Amino acid sequence: MMLEIVSRNKSFGGWHTQYSHHSQVLACPMRFAIYLPPQAVEGNPVPVLYWLSGLTCSDENFMQKAGAQRIAAELGIAIVAPDTSPRGEGVADDPAYDLGMGAGFYLNATQSPWHAHYQMHDYVTDELPALIEAHFPVSTRRAISGHSMGGHGALVAALRQPERYLSVSAFSPISHPSLCPWGQKAFTAYLGDDTKAWQAWDSCELLSRYEGQPLPTRVDVGLDDSFLTTQLGIEDLVAAAQARSWPLELHQHPGYDHSYYFVASFIEDHLRFHARYLLA
Amino acid sequence: MMLEIVSRNKSFGGWHTQYSHHSQVLACPMRFAIYLPPQAVEGNPVPVLYWLSGLTCSDENFMQKAGAQRIAAELGIAIVAPDTSPRGEGVADDPAYDLGMGAGFYLNATQSPWHAHYQMHDYVTDELPALIEAHFPVSTRRAISGHSMGGHGALVAALRQPERYLSVSAFSPISHPSLCPWGQKAFTAYLGDDTKAWQAWDSCELLSRYEGQPLPTRVDVGLDDSFLTTQLGIEDLVAAAQARSWPLELHQHPGYDHSYYFVASFIEDHLRFHARYLLA
Repeated sequence: MMLEIVSRNKSFGGWHTQYSHHSQVLACPMRFAIYLPPQAVEGNPVPVLYWLSGLTCSDENFMQKAGAQRIAAELGIAIVAPDTSPRGEGVADDPAYDLGMGAGFYLNATQSPWHAHYQMHDYVTDELPALIEAHFPVSTRRAISGHSMGGHGALVAALRQPERYLSVSAFSPISHPSLCPWGQKAFTAYLGDDTKAWQAWDSCELLSRYEGQPLPTRVDVGLDDSFLTTQLGIEDLVAAAQARSWPLELHQHPGYDHSYYFVASFIEDHLRFHARYLLA
Repeated sequence: MMLEIVSRNKSFGGWHTQYSHHSQVLACPMRFAIYLPPQAVEGNPVPVLYWLSGLTCSDENFMQKAGAQRIAAELGIAIVAPDTSPRGEGVADDPAYDLGMGAGFYLNATQSPWHAHYQMHDYVTDELPALIEAHFPVSTRRAISGHSMGGHGALVAALRQPERYLSVSAFSPISHPSLCPWGQKAFTAYLGDDTKAWQAWDSCELLSRYEGQPLPTRVDVGLDDSFLTTQLGIEDLVAAAQARSWPLELHQHPGYDHSYYFVASFIEDHLRFHARYLLA
């Protein structure tokens, strides 16, 4: 059996299901969650929003805390939430919360001991969508979004493979990882000391070199986010977007922080943003 | 300081805050969460929905998973979520998940070693509302709701003290605890072997003896709830309500289970139900 059901719950008339499967790309068993809205039945494929979570998360945080199913059920959009790293025995790890398991940074690692399993970019942009599109009543109309490390992952996925997505959004993304402590630590471990190799995994660097058609992009950030000035680099993303005339919708929210209380408050806006392109 | 802030997050334009305080009734420090909608400012007191959570929960499960803040912010209703039992060093406990900490059953225990701290009924119906009404811009218009063990707690609170509430609702309540394994285990421990003493804490028993004005009541239950036939006793509640011409709105949902995915799917209906009375 390729896909094994871990749990299954009816939600807003649709179904939230956790599956486990063996990932070839990551060379380990992986778990993901999919929310299929009531519209998703055989013969009526729905578009898919991929959601990438932040540090320490699994597939569960977004599905349990964001309240996205209500809008997804209204709009007829499926949501897929992968885990944030490879896991299990034999997978390299680090005791810190911001490296190793739960902290895959959605890149393809080149350095030992990480490269054997940490190929999250290929997993979330290629292997997982192929699996989803083979097994569920979904179309190939895709959008991608995420939070914090997952916001970075969504922007990088869209900038590296724009032909695969119709729109991209992010909450509180780590926008310029080459220049912030979280990113420098992870990139040094996964990609090595040569900062040239980091450019291919940094949304500000990718955007400043981008030559293709731009992709509709929405970013929301809380102005009371405790990581705003030290880790997120939103102003660098805005500058890079302006320099390339990139269509970045930036929404800044006074009083909001980095938590899922913030994500939940504005997830409806993100789903309606993606619906403009997914359902067009 | 009577109330100490534990955490604070902006949510849907209002504020979710966790506080700790010393409970006189429970003789231990307690934590609760309050969501104040944007309408709650000095001089504009808002009504309050008290939410009682189920076995193993703290104040966090409902606030993180139910998605209630969106509707509370729209309607102008505060939500207060207490913990599910006394906690801490010196508080009696049991290794099982369904007795002791996390399983207070919202009653006043009479048996040793529980009675020293397990007085959750007095805490949630009396001490906590007094504290909330003294410290926050809320009115004395109250409703009460809850899930599973907390659904039992909400029904019992409303049936024992109907003058304190304008409406009551429950998701998947343990409706007839005297006759189900969860209830029998907890009541034996907290109240002793004499089942006469159980009647004062059992919503079916209370309802069958109720003489006052009835209270608007809504109950939702999932028909794929794995505890439906063994623990919930909904049919006994329906029979007791019919015998007393009690205004029970029962909503049964095919496919839904006992989880917060179920609660989240119908919390909007419950808040709008309570708003009819709280905002009248």
